[in-house]
Amino acid sequence: MLLILDKPGTYVSKEGRTLRIKLGKEKMEPIAVKNLSEVIVLTKVNISYDALILLAKYGVPVIFCSRWEPKAVFHPFFHHGTVITRREQMKALYDKRGIHLAKKFAIASLENKISILRYYRNLRSDNSDILDIIDDAIIEIKNRVEMIDNIDEPLDKVRMRIMGLEGEGAQKYFSAIKYLLPGELGFNGRYRRPPLDPVNASLSFGYAIIYSRTLIAIAAAGLEPYAGFLHTDRSGKPSLILDLSEEFKQWLVDRTVLSLFNKRVLKGDFFEKRSGGIYLNDKGKKVLVEALSNRLNKKVKVSQFKGKVNPMTVIIAQARRIVRYLLGIDSEYRPFIWEGR
Amino acid sequence: MLLILDKPGTYVSKEGRTLRIKLGKEKMEPIAVKNLSEVIVLTKVNISYDALILLAKYGVPVIFCSRWEPKAVFHPFFHHGTVITRREQMKALYDKRGIHLAKKFAIASLENKISILRYYRNLRSDNSDILDIIDDAIIEIKNRVEMIDNIDEPLDKVRMRIMGLEGEGAQKYFSAIKYLLPGELGFNGRYRRPPLDPVNASLSFGYAIIYSRTLIAIAAAGLEPYAGFLHTDRSGKPSLILDLSEEFKQWLVDRTVLSLFNKRVLKGDFFEKRSGGIYLNDKGKKVLVEALSNRLNKKVKVSQFKGKVNPMTVIIAQARRIVRYLLGIDSEYRPFIWEGR
Repeated sequence: MLLILDKPGTYVSKEGRTLRIKLGKEKMEPIAVKNLSEVIVLTKVNISYDALILLAKYGVPVIFCSRWEPKAVFHPFFHHGTVITRREQMKALYDKRGIHLAKKFAIASLENKISILRYYRNLRSDNSDILDIIDDAIIEIKNRVEMIDNIDEPLDKVRMRIMGLEGEGAQKYFSAIKYLLPGELGFNGRYRRPPLDPVNASLSFGYAIIYSRTLIAIAAAGLEPYAGFLHTDRSGKPSLILDLSEEFKQWLVDRTVLSLFNKRVLKGDFFEKRSGGIYLNDKGKKVLVEALSNRLNKKVKVSQFKGKVNPMTVIIAQARRIVRYLLGIDSEYRPFIWEGR
Repeated sequence: MLLILDKPGTYVSKEGRTLRIKLGKEKMEPIAVKNLSEVIVLTKVNISYDALILLAKYGVPVIFCSRWEPKAVFHPFFHHGTVITRREQMKALYDKRGIHLAKKFAIASLENKISILRYYRNLRSDNSDILDIIDDAIIEIKNRVEMIDNIDEPLDKVRMRIMGLEGEGAQKYFSAIKYLLPGELGFNGRYRRPPLDPVNASLSFGYAIIYSRTLIAIAAAGLEPYAGFLHTDRSGKPSLILDLSEEFKQWLVDRTVLSLFNKRVLKGDFFEKRSGGIYLNDKGKKVLVEALSNRLNKKVKVSQFKGKVNPMTVIIAQARRIVRYLLGIDSEYRPFIWEGR
């Protein structure tokens, strides 16, 4: 069970083997620590020393966030599960599991891009030029997926090749996305440092939000955020975040950004020029944060999950799937691939 | 600066960029977070959410202990230093730095054993039989040190060989130690699982205390405790603890245990038989914990350090030396070797 503490002024103390949660005069039912998988602290919450030591005893990590941005993790030592998970993660960097995971993350990135293109293909079936562009892009991306799938060499040797193929597929994707956006935005493919147009600015901002959520899930699963498989250290971001985020960026961010621009909710005066780049201004940030929060908090039906689920549930589940694969419980890692609404 | 919070009831809150520390009516000078390297919580101390987020912002880890036994670490994300340290540690597992460190830890283990033998050689110069035994052991151990020093192959290939040579040296050491202890104790070399005599029981208990201190130092330095170089996962203990502890076990534990038995402070009725082994009873634990605490808290003059230092300072300094070596600030790692009183 996941415990999210999001009410300022909450006080958490220990009572036997349970947590007592108090907010003002309000007192909740005590929560048995053995039923908890992780605790996420989103705001000014005070957890007593005894409660923290009890959580540590049961191997329950606590992730401290400030506005959903993870700042630190309270990480128990000597918990059997964590020991084994980290050890297997380190080993996997240099055995077949590492290459398996790296390929799956790269393939997930591209398959999710295909899903987005297919989704817009259905919406834009009126325009045969656009249909051709989308179909060509899908063929090109599928081709890169196959090439990645066929790689079978040590990760150290092929990481750059996989990254290169994924990059080529991504380029085809964004070249097609260009035609799915109002032309006046000047979007001409993905460019990060710095973003030079409103679409790139919005994508970068949105991805940062997804990285935060992914880090929470990774820390909660007991994985080491810095030991990624596909990505290596880039701009100081823990690489496993970049790996796993590939499964959620398109589904959660790209779709939101495309929709906001096409509906003209996001437009020119929501951006500002700054230090050689284009960035969202406060008004723009508010619009995008709100739209993304709505998406992140809305339960939806997605493939591989029963019933309607919150996207955060999907992210946490995928981090746990990495663990299940590393521990040999699952014989392969199944990335999340969005399959249209 | 290291902040150790060891008074029950202490409350830590944020004030600007400083920590306010309150104990009852007593209020201390605020502490600037930028001057802190780590915080160690030893007892019921309450740290506010805002104070924790401030510590995270400055990359200051907080280690939560219960009676000096580390239970969990509060580990900041996205702190530049930590990112780089962990990344380099992971890389080092598979490059020349890994073999360098593994060799140094093994050599430190053996050199420290030689130091102990030399120390007792001076005390027992009356008995020529014992002198011969000690001298023979020193020669044998020196021989293993040289063999380890000459190894120069990838770590994966030679880890077991280094461990084997270290094990042989340790065996020679404990065979000589046998003659430095009262014969009635039945000590006949190191045997762990389970300890079958009072000396082994005391060594195991003492080493566990050193492991705790070493874990605190490792966590404080931002190193990943599970990614050791010489040791691999054994009985669920993070392997880097086992590596680094090799530098402190003899100096701090072996000497204390030998002295307590030779002075007959530790004796038969401080032990009990339990589940096929011999263990310290509560009376025995109290004696050993007290003796070790005295040693751990007493400032002493040791080689490589200026002035008199607390052994915990040495342990923390060595963990930082690992970091300095991993980051390339130091061109080699210099293990701690005790050189007699």
